[in-house]
Amino acid sequence: VPSRRPPSSRSTREAISRREGKALTRQALVRAALKLLSRNSFDSISLREVTREAGISPTAFYRHFDDMEELGLVLVEESFGSLREMLRVARSDPTMFGDAINRSVETVVIHVRDHEDLFRFIARERYGGVRRLRRAINRELQAIADELSVDLTAFPVIGGWPLEDRRMFAGMLVETMVTTAAALLDAPRDQTDEIATRAKRQLRLMTLGVPHWKPQHTDRAR
Amino acid sequence: VPSRRPPSSRSTREAISRREGKALTRQALVRAALKLLSRNSFDSISLREVTREAGISPTAFYRHFDDMEELGLVLVEESFGSLREMLRVARSDPTMFGDAINRSVETVVIHVRDHEDLFRFIARERYGGVRRLRRAINRELQAIADELSVDLTAFPVIGGWPLEDRRMFAGMLVETMVTTAAALLDAPRDQTDEIATRAKRQLRLMTLGVPHWKPQHTDRAR
Repeated sequence: VPSRRPPSSRSTREAISRREGKALTRQALVRAALKLLSRNSFDSISLREVTREAGISPTAFYRHFDDMEELGLVLVEESFGSLREMLRVARSDPTMFGDAINRSVETVVIHVRDHEDLFRFIARERYGGVRRLRRAINRELQAIADELSVDLTAFPVIGGWPLEDRRMFAGMLVETMVTTAAALLDAPRDQTDEIATRAKRQLRLMTLGVPHWKPQHTDRAR
Repeated sequence: VPSRRPPSSRSTREAISRREGKALTRQALVRAALKLLSRNSFDSISLREVTREAGISPTAFYRHFDDMEELGLVLVEESFGSLREMLRVARSDPTMFGDAINRSVETVVIHVRDHEDLFRFIARERYGGVRRLRRAINRELQAIADELSVDLTAFPVIGGWPLEDRRMFAGMLVETMVTTAAALLDAPRDQTDEIATRAKRQLRLMTLGVPHWKPQHTDRAR
């Protein structure tokens, strides 16, 4: 049996605590930014305000992020990180449109309510003053729509649609989710059910048109 | 014939030029704010930056607006002022859904392209950091949706729907317009037709579900 360096050796412990310390500082910066962003838009807060809120020196900021925009991109990743996977699971049993709709809306409601500060930031910066953030957010939404447009082929009535039509329809569904998420953030908590019900009904009305859509009769073909 | 004071008298001319001067200064402040807002969100620009851009002293600002928020509310009014009326005209001939859809989308496209700075401000501040602006913008959008939900009664298939269902459907149509407007602002000009066509097709797919919607079977009634 080869001898192994015990994990409790001094240098290992120091390395671990350095790593943990770095992760904690980074987390403190993210939390401080989110706190400021709950009331302000991204282009109105400064690096100095974030470090002051986090209790860290401005120079220490650069050990974690190249600049404020990189911190913003991390917030975009955090917002969408688990949501995409959760939405795939929500619609993974395509026996009925209605079930997939209800589960998807409930997934969005729970996720947004659990991460209100993150999604307020997303709603705000989707059309905000920082181009890199706008693009990152729209890329994430496009990825959700693209995954959905693939999964939609599992529904017999949509299976034969050309990709462009599936993308258009997926885009409608995703935009309804985005509007619902934004409405949740601007409304008191006791309106959550009302907003969720409205979203489910809107999505159901959209799907009612699906069997009557004639994919070949596009405007482009005219 | 009673004698009238000639319009070219000195005091009248002075009063007119004072009024014109005031209107011009106000207009200069609005233009300066819009220019700054084309790249920044409302809560990141200051009164001082606006007056500097307009070439006016900060104290002169207060002869025109109580504060920056009041200037923001004027921008909201300017954005929606003619749009509501234009949209009513666009759907005033309810012979066909399709026509009303095409005319409404074209109205939005032209209006947004004519006032890009105003609508970039609207897209940004709808979920922005200033509560009074958020509320003013959502009031305007709600007014458009309310007017639409009344006009929808002219379509026989919707005429019998309860108000809540018409409101839900009108909300879907208005949100599609909002998303379209925001997409136009973020895309190069040569994608205008593509974005407009997509909006028309999405709206048409939504209306295909209408004859199959059963208004009495709401979630609430269950």
